[in-house]
Amino acid sequence: MTVRHSTAAPRYDPVRYERGRLTVLDQTRLPRETVYAALTELDQVETAIRTLQVRGAPLIGIAAAYGVCIALAGSPSLAEAQRRAPAVLARLAATRPTAVNLSWALARMERAIAALREPDWREALEAEAAAVHRDGRAQDARMVSHGLALLAPNARVITHCNTGPLATGGLGTALGVLIGAHGKLGGLHVYVDETRPRWQGAHLTTWELAQHGVPHTLICDGAAAALMQRGGIHSVWVGADRIAANGDTANKVGTYGLAVNARHHGLPFYVVAPTSTFDLALDSGAGIPIEERSPREVAAPEGLLLAPPETPAWNPAFDVTPSELISAIVCEQGVFRGPKYDLRKDIAG
Amino acid sequence: MTVRHSTAAPRYDPVRYERGRLTVLDQTRLPRETVYAALTELDQVETAIRTLQVRGAPLIGIAAAYGVCIALAGSPSLAEAQRRAPAVLARLAATRPTAVNLSWALARMERAIAALREPDWREALEAEAAAVHRDGRAQDARMVSHGLALLAPNARVITHCNTGPLATGGLGTALGVLIGAHGKLGGLHVYVDETRPRWQGAHLTTWELAQHGVPHTLICDGAAAALMQRGGIHSVWVGADRIAANGDTANKVGTYGLAVNARHHGLPFYVVAPTSTFDLALDSGAGIPIEERSPREVAAPEGLLLAPPETPAWNPAFDVTPSELISAIVCEQGVFRGPKYDLRKDIAG
Repeated sequence: MTVRHSTAAPRYDPVRYERGRLTVLDQTRLPRETVYAALTELDQVETAIRTLQVRGAPLIGIAAAYGVCIALAGSPSLAEAQRRAPAVLARLAATRPTAVNLSWALARMERAIAALREPDWREALEAEAAAVHRDGRAQDARMVSHGLALLAPNARVITHCNTGPLATGGLGTALGVLIGAHGKLGGLHVYVDETRPRWQGAHLTTWELAQHGVPHTLICDGAAAALMQRGGIHSVWVGADRIAANGDTANKVGTYGLAVNARHHGLPFYVVAPTSTFDLALDSGAGIPIEERSPREVAAPEGLLLAPPETPAWNPAFDVTPSELISAIVCEQGVFRGPKYDLRKDIAG
Repeated sequence: MTVRHSTAAPRYDPVRYERGRLTVLDQTRLPRETVYAALTELDQVETAIRTLQVRGAPLIGIAAAYGVCIALAGSPSLAEAQRRAPAVLARLAATRPTAVNLSWALARMERAIAALREPDWREALEAEAAAVHRDGRAQDARMVSHGLALLAPNARVITHCNTGPLATGGLGTALGVLIGAHGKLGGLHVYVDETRPRWQGAHLTTWELAQHGVPHTLICDGAAAALMQRGGIHSVWVGADRIAANGDTANKVGTYGLAVNARHHGLPFYVVAPTSTFDLALDSGAGIPIEERSPREVAAPEGLLLAPPETPAWNPAFDVTPSELISAIVCEQGVFRGPKYDLRKDIAG
């Protein structure tokens, strides 16, 4: 593994699609190895999403869109592809329950499939998946631009989980803003929560910050409050997996406790996510399904037996931060400021 | 490793002294192996404390008292032992900076050494160390009894780090109360914070609860807030490494953020510690030295490389919870209720 401390654009691409083949950077092997996996079957795509080889709410949506192409572009006819589509969409939708970008991207593919016409339907299907990816990149660029307005030079910030290019296939969400601030504002220092149980902060965010030459320090999740208490922290930045109409935000477990501590210390708490993460069908976070993953991720992570083998563990992958703890939600349309949100009205068509 | 789910007394003893030999249960190897190490030299005792083979604020004090015996009981004469004593005491005092029980126990040994008389000075020295241990056991029993008054049957509680028999050589502090509640009140369920970076919750507390047959569930530190939000938790219980006169409490990193979240959810937050943990020379927690340990405990724990090798990490071993977040401090003298404490007046002689 080589980590370059440079300001050059990163030389990694979390997903890349060429007809019938989705090449993904295996995020479960970072930072130890930079290994790409080629996925050519639907069940490989499902497994890659389920096992977190591909993760990050926006990136899951993009990978699923390409997964639809892998499953259907080889169909002998358009009619056959359209007949098979519902089952394919349902299988992909079932891979992860919390991130709504997944169902958003699949709904978009579903509409495209219904509109496909002979003879170039395969190209049109793949063009739609590429558009999901391209639109995501463009949204990231706009989010980063909006988010920069919330930062000043020499900011010291805390972030949780991974929300960089690895999570979106573009510039990233919260981490995209921070990487942008490093280049545009200068003097940034990012404190990175390790983000148990899967260590996306330790594994991925430190790796991305090193790739972009952004000064950073890794901390245990439990040390964030002590860091805030010590003083000198300016704001806290996270992404989102699903945001209800009232602004309640599901994100990686640990986010909620971090938001409570940010509030206790009077620190702004910012959520950065594209509108494809908004679930306007939900009035509040109470309706967001929370994925519970294997207890082994807690008790025996990465082969390390932390507790007696029969120890029961509770492993919610996400938690819900009530909107009143969120200072602002940054999306590609702009900055919505709390503590009250009505995202159904806030967002444009 | 065998874990018995029984209600019988545990068959482990974290320290045991016989003339010139301190046998310690190596807590760095739990829960994988139950291995005892025999320490017969001062530098072995220092290393055992520094490397956390022996840990837990009260137990560190007891081990250090026995360490004084190991270092001095072999002296050819009392005069020689008294001449060497200051250097021995200084070496042991330097092993861990935050827990005040260490300096408390060493001060007690220092007074005893000054009072030693020929010819039975070796026996008297060892008797004083044994008295430190015995007094600690008696204090634990009284703390457990006082703490039980704060619990009702069928309590669901959260605890952080390890504060059981392994931490004190007696019944334990906070975990001692909980183990007592399991036997006396019934229906207890303990949620155990894994307690990064050293995993004392995952490694030690789950192991102790299993030994005592207490139902429990391991969680990541970052999941405690989500657990509180879900409802059904009654109180939070922790130990302490040093408590200032105003009640400010240094304890394992993560305690402070947990206390902030307990307050946010209206949950009682209880600290259990013997008066030997009180540092009445300090007006507030601002004067408590916080040990910073190796960044490797964060970035590469137990041989697992979590982040790129050059990743900087911040690793405070403790944090300070302001007294206004503490609902009550339980010691062997009784229960002191907050939010205001004046421990100089509260405690008896």
